[in-house]
Amino acid sequence: MLDKLNELLESRYDEMVEIRRYLHQFPELSFKEFHTAAYIAEFYENLGIAHQTNVGGNGIVAKIAGAKPGKTVALRADFDALPIQDEKEVAYKSKVPGVMHACGHDGHTATLLVLAKCLNELKEDLEGNVVLIHQHAEEYAPGGAVAMINDGCLEGVDVIFGTHLWAGTEVGKIQYRVGPVMAAADRFSIKVQGSGGHGAQPHKTKDAVVTASQLVLNLQQIVSRRVNPVDPAVISVGTFVAENAFNIIADSAYLEGTVRTFNDDVRDMIEEEIDVVASSTCALNGSTYEYNFHRGYPAVVNHKDETDYLVSVAADVKDVETLEETPPHMGGEDYSYYLRHVKGTFFFTGAKPEGVEVAYPHHHPKFDINEKSLLIAAKTLGAATVLYHQYEKGKLIPTHQ
Amino acid sequence: MLDKLNELLESRYDEMVEIRRYLHQFPELSFKEFHTAAYIAEFYENLGIAHQTNVGGNGIVAKIAGAKPGKTVALRADFDALPIQDEKEVAYKSKVPGVMHACGHDGHTATLLVLAKCLNELKEDLEGNVVLIHQHAEEYAPGGAVAMINDGCLEGVDVIFGTHLWAGTEVGKIQYRVGPVMAAADRFSIKVQGSGGHGAQPHKTKDAVVTASQLVLNLQQIVSRRVNPVDPAVISVGTFVAENAFNIIADSAYLEGTVRTFNDDVRDMIEEEIDVVASSTCALNGSTYEYNFHRGYPAVVNHKDETDYLVSVAADVKDVETLEETPPHMGGEDYSYYLRHVKGTFFFTGAKPEGVEVAYPHHHPKFDINEKSLLIAAKTLGAATVLYHQYEKGKLIPTHQ
Amino acid sequence: MLDKLNELLESRYDEMVEIRRYLHQFPELSFKEFHTAAYIAEFYENLGIAHQTNVGGNGIVAKIAGAKPGKTVALRADFDALPIQDEKEVAYKSKVPGVMHACGHDGHTATLLVLAKCLNELKEDLEGNVVLIHQHAEEYAPGGAVAMINDGCLEGVDVIFGTHLWAGTEVGKIQYRVGPVMAAADRFSIKVQGSGGHGAQPHKTKDAVVTASQLVLNLQQIVSRRVNPVDPAVISVGTFVAENAFNIIADSAYLEGTVRTFNDDVRDMIEEEIDVVASSTCALNGSTYEYNFHRGYPAVVNHKDETDYLVSVAADVKDVETLEETPPHMGGEDYSYYLRHVKGTFFFTGAKPEGVEVAYPHHHPKFDINEKSLLIAAKTLGAATVLYHQYEKGKLIPTHQ
Amino acid sequence: MLDKLNELLESRYDEMVEIRRYLHQFPELSFKEFHTAAYIAEFYENLGIAHQTNVGGNGIVAKIAGAKPGKTVALRADFDALPIQDEKEVAYKSKVPGVMHACGHDGHTATLLVLAKCLNELKEDLEGNVVLIHQHAEEYAPGGAVAMINDGCLEGVDVIFGTHLWAGTEVGKIQYRVGPVMAAADRFSIKVQGSGGHGAQPHKTKDAVVTASQLVLNLQQIVSRRVNPVDPAVISVGTFVAENAFNIIADSAYLEGTVRTFNDDVRDMIEEEIDVVASSTCALNGSTYEYNFHRGYPAVVNHKDETDYLVSVAADVKDVETLEETPPHMGGEDYSYYLRHVKGTFFFTGAKPEGVEVAYPHHHPKFDINEKSLLIAAKTLGAATVLYHQYEKGKLIPTHQ
Repeated sequence: MLDKLNELLESRYDEMVEIRRYLHQFPELSFKEFHTAAYIAEFYENLGIAHQTNVGGNGIVAKIAGAKPGKTVALRADFDALPIQDEKEVAYKSKVPGVMHACGHDGHTATLLVLAKCLNELKEDLEGNVVLIHQHAEEYAPGGAVAMINDGCLEGVDVIFGTHLWAGTEVGKIQYRVGPVMAAADRFSIKVQGSGGHGAQPHKTKDAVVTASQLVLNLQQIVSRRVNPVDPAVISVGTFVAENAFNIIADSAYLEGTVRTFNDDVRDMIEEEIDVVASSTCALNGSTYEYNFHRGYPAVVNHKDETDYLVSVAADVKDVETLEETPPHMGGEDYSYYLRHVKGTFFFTGAKPEGVEVAYPHHHPKFDINEKSLLIAAKTLGAATVLYHQYEKGKLIPTHQ
Repeated sequence: MLDKLNELLESRYDEMVEIRRYLHQFPELSFKEFHTAAYIAEFYENLGIAHQTNVGGNGIVAKIAGAKPGKTVALRADFDALPIQDEKEVAYKSKVPGVMHACGHDGHTATLLVLAKCLNELKEDLEGNVVLIHQHAEEYAPGGAVAMINDGCLEGVDVIFGTHLWAGTEVGKIQYRVGPVMAAADRFSIKVQGSGGHGAQPHKTKDAVVTASQLVLNLQQIVSRRVNPVDPAVISVGTFVAENAFNIIADSAYLEGTVRTFNDDVRDMIEEEIDVVASSTCALNGSTYEYNFHRGYPAVVNHKDETDYLVSVAADVKDVETLEETPPHMGGEDYSYYLRHVKGTFFFTGAKPEGVEVAYPHHHPKFDINEKSLLIAAKTLGAATVLYHQYEKGKLIPTHQ
Repeated sequence: MLDKLNELLESRYDEMVEIRRYLHQFPELSFKEFHTAAYIAEFYENLGIAHQTNVGGNGIVAKIAGAKPGKTVALRADFDALPIQDEKEVAYKSKVPGVMHACGHDGHTATLLVLAKCLNELKEDLEGNVVLIHQHAEEYAPGGAVAMINDGCLEGVDVIFGTHLWAGTEVGKIQYRVGPVMAAADRFSIKVQGSGGHGAQPHKTKDAVVTASQLVLNLQQIVSRRVNPVDPAVISVGTFVAENAFNIIADSAYLEGTVRTFNDDVRDMIEEEIDVVASSTCALNGSTYEYNFHRGYPAVVNHKDETDYLVSVAADVKDVETLEETPPHMGGEDYSYYLRHVKGTFFFTGAKPEGVEVAYPHHHPKFDINEKSLLIAAKTLGAATVLYHQYEKGKLIPTHQ
Repeated sequence: MLDKLNELLESRYDEMVEIRRYLHQFPELSFKEFHTAAYIAEFYENLGIAHQTNVGGNGIVAKIAGAKPGKTVALRADFDALPIQDEKEVAYKSKVPGVMHACGHDGHTATLLVLAKCLNELKEDLEGNVVLIHQHAEEYAPGGAVAMINDGCLEGVDVIFGTHLWAGTEVGKIQYRVGPVMAAADRFSIKVQGSGGHGAQPHKTKDAVVTASQLVLNLQQIVSRRVNPVDPAVISVGTFVAENAFNIIADSAYLEGTVRTFNDDVRDMIEEEIDVVASSTCALNGSTYEYNFHRGYPAVVNHKDETDYLVSVAADVKDVETLEETPPHMGGEDYSYYLRHVKGTFFFTGAKPEGVEVAYPHHHPKFDINEKSLLIAAKTLGAATVLYHQYEKGKLIPTHQ
């Protein structure tokens, strides 16, 4: 059956590209993806594939039941775009001013739609079921994943697979990782409240600029002294604002920054330690503070067996030339929520445009992908889907076909 | 002659108050004191006292030649007001929206005008000459003093006396100090240029917030380690601005602050040391910087003999109940320039309003003075003037009358 | 053949224990392991196994040639002990005052000797050759590995396997890791040269205690800001010495510390960045410095295919209950040098004593191991040896037997 | 009478020098000045001057009652020496190995003894009484002054005068200062108790070197931010000790330093603020501390009227060429205690050796004084004594003779 699927996918590569380019021209912002959602729903409607709309918002969930018994595999693609002005000069350039598919979600969606179409045609041979999760609002916290899960999108699901087309990685390369692969991305703010006064009389003040400067430096030591060196962690303060006349000592200062971690314990510890640092640094200076820690998406933590399985499956995909362990990405993804409910993995599919030395990074106004990656992603996800029922986990590693 | 002068002054106290209240109602900002200057000139014109207008700008210099030979004593009063809305509820409240005599310069002017009038009447008895310097623009750097000096206001002058009515000090008290009495008040700015980037990838950036935070702290050590502990010095950073999205590492950060010193060597050293601190702190972080140091007025440094003389003279003024050494003030005054050209002193005349526990500070919207201080200031300046020719400096300290 | 080997090993478990206990009683310090080396040589001599003594010092290299053609597999065991007083109360307690096998090298040696004996008996069935590397001086830099390699111990070797008995890990567990598994462990020292003086006159000094304190804190920022967050790195200053009378400002201060990394680029970068930090921090304070960076062992970096192979092999060892990826250890090992010359892997064999909640850590005076671990280590290394010739590396992962 | 006294003193200059040189050859350490005390007592005994020995230890108090009624003036000279090896090549070099009059106390004593002898001869003309306080143990806290005061040496005393011969100041110059003239010199120690561990595992430790480094820097900010800039203050950490193997994170660190202030409020505040800094810095790092603050002598704070009087008197002393206000000295003196009980002043008498560009500083092995300073000191103290009864304090400043 895998061979048939691959043939079908190859024959429909042009359709994938067409869909992707259509979506690219009509991007929609997170939580406002009404037309995109309608487009997806119509696609399934036309094929007579059972699907549910407005799942947890603009999400759509389609389902293909195999004729043979087996496990239920979910595949996820996100479909929102970004508030960026498209600056590429291509025929399929965004037609929406200030909005752009600058992260490849158009490609994710095209891949999944065409893969669904093919799987549907082969459903007589299919062992088990396939759930197609089209998720809205990945780019903007709290994201669409949580709402879709709460709305039942994972019910009956045994395992989930997803991929991100990645412009920085060569076409033909699949990057995987067991364990943490994308970071928890949190935000924090601290307002230091000192006591202002004349610049010539520091002893009558509690200098908020000095206090906040110490705070910035003391926060760095959480990373270098409090976190296990083998656990990646970042604390960065991006904003420091205390604006006063040159001869006035600041009454207050405002800090805002981000924390990145891959491990819940480290994340919890850092949230607490920032408070310890703020509290003691302010005590040092006779000042007070307000501290807020806003949790973003948790880390995407891939399951070992499912990642090993995906790797073993991908190794046999014709167009996959290289399989490579990726270092953890410090960026965030709300795919993390799915993996907290069911087993699965998330991998990167190389999508570097042809003929460039260095690709424009994701979220860049000139971002683009190599569309060949759509076919590779479709084949890899397809193989992971149709082989899963046959997969008998060994003591440690998956058996080849 | 001193007795006559004091009698005359007492008899003209009402006039002083009247002039002060008039000026209080029609305050003018620094460098824009056209009507006030005209008022002063007219006063001298009406009395037939020789005077020059537009000295170094809006300044006016009048001259009274005594019938007897002797030294030339200059007296200085400033006459500009501040961009503050008068919030007092008094009959003589400012009639100019947003402008106010919130520092007592109206009183300084009234004092000097009436004193001049009296001295002029007694000029047959006067040994030596009196130069009356009505200075514009004390409140706003570069100030009026430098321009008036350049325009010749100190030519032929042997000694200068000046006072500041001081609302925080009780009426009846004169505060003096040998040596530095008001600080040099300078301004500096440092722009740290790092290299920004994503908050999750500090290793690809040169974090300007971290660099500038270190800079703030390292600047403090100039005061605690590089300056002689017996030389007062302050470095305060009032502004720290780096505004970015929470997940962006700052590309640059801007600092602005003030330096206060009483000693030219310390001032020069701090100007240089800030550069050393900025340079090495930026080198530490692979960053660069722009540093500007803007000199304000230098320190007011009273001459010892003239201060001792003033004290000895003031001790005999009837309404002066207390003579007190003041600690140095950290604020600035462009009276400093006069003392770099001729000998003299600058003292504070208590002007605390009656019936209040704590006076509104200078530059406060409800600032006011006790007008009795005008008479005391006039008598003290008057005595310093008429006795100066008789003053034979002893080995160390002045001889009493 | 593997079954025969396992039977033989099981039948000789008592001999392993006996050898281990003998060595435990007669430990010798690094570079002084003369009797231990003689003991090992005699063991091979008695069995008629070809071996070479004094390889790169006290090292011994034995060689067993299989009757069938094949690859050459090296196995390594270290045999030096530590300058620690044995405080255990057991029959086999160290008889050498102040010297102790507190790291399990006695077990490593016993394992390898008995495994060699068994392999020698089965050499008619053996495909390829086995090289048995008994390494002296692992505990003390520069270590024995470099000298043994320079002396030819890896000549003709295709792959190397080694293990560390690990008291903190349960018996039955094997811990592996692809890539960096043990850190590069370097040492550095910085002498800050300021200019001393009286504690009351900081402005006449360059305070070395202040400078060195800043240096300590600035070093921390290399880890938090200059190193890629996914690359583990540690900089710790263990020694800070500036001893003066309480009222004297320090002329100089001495710092000494360690750096741990897993990646040569990070290691090089930190070596350079410490110099940048020292240079700029001293420039900030008008001081100078001497900086030395002493490289210890580089990181142990396991090869992927050989690690995957070892894992797949270990998965079939009867007594191996769990295979677990270990986080990187921050400690160092000169096994790293072997892996810079040939492919291979280094793994941990659980050796936690029975009936204890928490084992005494390595290098503790009461350290001991569970001797059952010897048999597991022998079986795992044995399997890795005899199966290697059959091993055909797949596209990505090894094929099971 | 003053003229007679001056004549007498001049005629006995040789005796002063002789006594000074004798004492210089037989110096004794603080609290062990037995022979020096006996020498002084014998001097008074021989003259029949009433005196008391063993006052508060080795102190001696002599008393001369004038024939005329008047005030009681105390004069103080200290007589202990220092644990320094005399390295001068002069005939009167110290004969006691390792002990030396390296601070001029021999001169103080010679001055006071001869002055006492002269005053005693003129006692028929003397209005009021003179108390001659020969104090032991100035160099070593807690000093002799407190004990002598407790033992009654100031009973009946109205005013006290004292001087320090000062090698750095030209002969002929008297340096005075109203208010604080010598600093309070205190000592403090802080032991930081963290939690040690392996250098590679900072997250399992509380790094005492990092904590103590922060403490050193945070202490500096007390001076730059908490103290009024016009109040001189110094905090210097002279000792920082944490000695560990390079790969061990420090369990504890020890700091010791000095605090210098001129004002009791600032002193109290700094004592408290160090505790705040230690407490919050340790809280920041999850560590604890022990803090001790050992008070040395308080600041010498001269009384205004008595200082003005001394200056006016000194101005008429023939050999006094210059009277100069001295900046505050950061060193300590237990003369401070006398001024907390009675009015008075402490001044410096120039004693720079002839023909040198720069004098060896006090406490230097080659320290010496110009003996002409003894006569000037004697005349100045003598004048201050005999004129005091006539002194009628004016409103502010003393009247000349």
